[in-house]
Amino acid sequence: MKAARYYGKEDLRIDDVPEPQVRPGAVKIAPAWTGICGSDLHVYFEGPMNPMPTAGNPHPLSGEEPPLVFGHEFSGVVKEVGEGVEGLSPGDSVVVEPLIVCGECFACRDGRYNLCEKMGFIGLSGRGGGLSERIVVEERFVHPVGDMPLDQAALIEPLAVAAHGVRLSGAGDGDVALVGGAGPIGLFTSAVLKALGATVIVSEMSQKRKEKAKDSGVADHVLDPAQDDVVARTMEITGGRGADVGFECAGVQPVFDALLHALKTGGMLQVIALFSKHPTLDTGPLLFKEIKIQGSMGYAHDHPNVIRLVREGKIDLTPFITRRIAVEDIVPEGLRRLMEHKDEEVKILVHL
Amino acid sequence: MKAARYYGKEDLRIDDVPEPQVRPGAVKIAPAWTGICGSDLHVYFEGPMNPMPTAGNPHPLSGEEPPLVFGHEFSGVVKEVGEGVEGLSPGDSVVVEPLIVCGECFACRDGRYNLCEKMGFIGLSGRGGGLSERIVVEERFVHPVGDMPLDQAALIEPLAVAAHGVRLSGAGDGDVALVGGAGPIGLFTSAVLKALGATVIVSEMSQKRKEKAKDSGVADHVLDPAQDDVVARTMEITGGRGADVGFECAGVQPVFDALLHALKTGGMLQVIALFSKHPTLDTGPLLFKEIKIQGSMGYAHDHPNVIRLVREGKIDLTPFITRRIAVEDIVPEGLRRLMEHKDEEVKILVHL
Repeated sequence: MKAARYYGKEDLRIDDVPEPQVRPGAVKIAPAWTGICGSDLHVYFEGPMNPMPTAGNPHPLSGEEPPLVFGHEFSGVVKEVGEGVEGLSPGDSVVVEPLIVCGECFACRDGRYNLCEKMGFIGLSGRGGGLSERIVVEERFVHPVGDMPLDQAALIEPLAVAAHGVRLSGAGDGDVALVGGAGPIGLFTSAVLKALGATVIVSEMSQKRKEKAKDSGVADHVLDPAQDDVVARTMEITGGRGADVGFECAGVQPVFDALLHALKTGGMLQVIALFSKHPTLDTGPLLFKEIKIQGSMGYAHDHPNVIRLVREGKIDLTPFITRRIAVEDIVPEGLRRLMEHKDEEVKILVHL
Repeated sequence: MKAARYYGKEDLRIDDVPEPQVRPGAVKIAPAWTGICGSDLHVYFEGPMNPMPTAGNPHPLSGEEPPLVFGHEFSGVVKEVGEGVEGLSPGDSVVVEPLIVCGECFACRDGRYNLCEKMGFIGLSGRGGGLSERIVVEERFVHPVGDMPLDQAALIEPLAVAAHGVRLSGAGDGDVALVGGAGPIGLFTSAVLKALGATVIVSEMSQKRKEKAKDSGVADHVLDPAQDDVVARTMEITGGRGADVGFECAGVQPVFDALLHALKTGGMLQVIALFSKHPTLDTGPLLFKEIKIQGSMGYAHDHPNVIRLVREGKIDLTPFITRRIAVEDIVPEGLRRLMEHKDEEVKILVHL
């Protein structure tokens, strides 16, 4: 079968590989659409990142090393079910929660399997990926999406990242949330917050991203730190109280600082973005406002909820699909385009 | 009456001042013992710190500026009660929760009066202090201590700081807590944790403080970061899981880092100490272990609980009173001694 495989930095090839066989407790899926994620860009242009295996260093759980089938944000259709699979049938539209976990470490045993010590990702660490004709995945990581269109379903994975952060933060109906950054994760976080009934203030400098936040309807207020005093404007919007919760979806010091200062006393700063440089923590607001800061990583137990939010019409994913391309064009039209025109794109979907 | 008053940096004088008159809703107290705190040292040797008034800049709530009666950690005996006071009578042993709050800001209205926008402290920002023959305090900030000895009662205020941090952290029975730093706040935090049934690991470099943590019975394990790998030892003690909760009671980067790395997935790092330099936040453990970091400031609604813990015998405060001095000796035997021999002292108590 056809599969796009990652060999290393700037080396992605379309290969002919053996089709995987279904096994007990697992299902065989024909991937439909695969989204390209920021990590994919990083891995393609910079080389393998943790927790990816490298030549001679196979992943501890998958046992695999490059070449690795690429793509972890994908939807598809069930083609075959293994022995003992009861909740899925051939023909079902599904998404994959692309985790490889040990099931034995403290985090796994605590149900926080997203923090597994040996964590790997389907599509980055082995066990196949979305950019192939067939993939076999354990039933527990396959979620039915009903009649959700398969292109939208490919966005469930990054939406689950956002929903996990929102759930950890405790934000909900009636809260005022300040979202720092309107890249894909900032937009999806805003969409989840809006679906839950929060008032959403988005802070973003890029003109295209500001427009997307506004036009997609996920932001009640869009601020631009180059023009607006984000802290003062948040205070104004909240009648002087400050935001109930802040979401760091940019991974940069000025956003981190603005969120800390714009929160109410006892507010929660949820960090979802990866930082390329560790920020300095201003302990003034931390202490004198008793702020909470919490990190968020991936998702655990979040897929069914986000699928429900989309199916109930509370989140409209269509504005976030900005391009559809064939796998043969993934480098120039997908990875390179996202690198060079990231402000114009949200999600580029790839099909085989 | 006699009162020790703060005029500014290294200028503390014993003055004769008018005795304050009791008013409705307030009680007149004869202070018995006053503890010296780290902030007192800072203020004496470095000059006024936020939220203290200075000459020409009176405190917004007290309306006072230096000279200011000194001392905010104190016990005493009620001498007279104002009209409408129902819960206190002359002769009652009490402690004062030395806060000056507006009652109107968002924090006050949320019950988080310790985060009042205009926050001040009795003994630092006006309205008298512990180092005087009489002080008049609103009933709501006066807490009866029953038959608790008045010297021990002077330690209720710093104990409340510790108890507030422990309460915010959610730590309790069965938890393993790692306390970074065994100065007064670290020791009191350990004492509260121990009283609640937690297993307490203390990390401290000073020989004297290590001994105090051990001899006072508040620590189950005492680690020395100069000799022990605190993270590895904590993992060992917790069977590989990591500490449930960490307490930053040192205010320095290496302790902050060690706590972040020694926590379990989903663990809580409670920051109680003030930092003289803002730390760098390692977002690795923050994100990949979904750690929570929370600041803690003073106390609110904590005094009755800590008084109960001491009266029930769950906390023994006697090991923490290391010296008793007269107010005339406060500079050489109190402030300067704490500055120069801080590792040998926990609480020095002053009487008039």
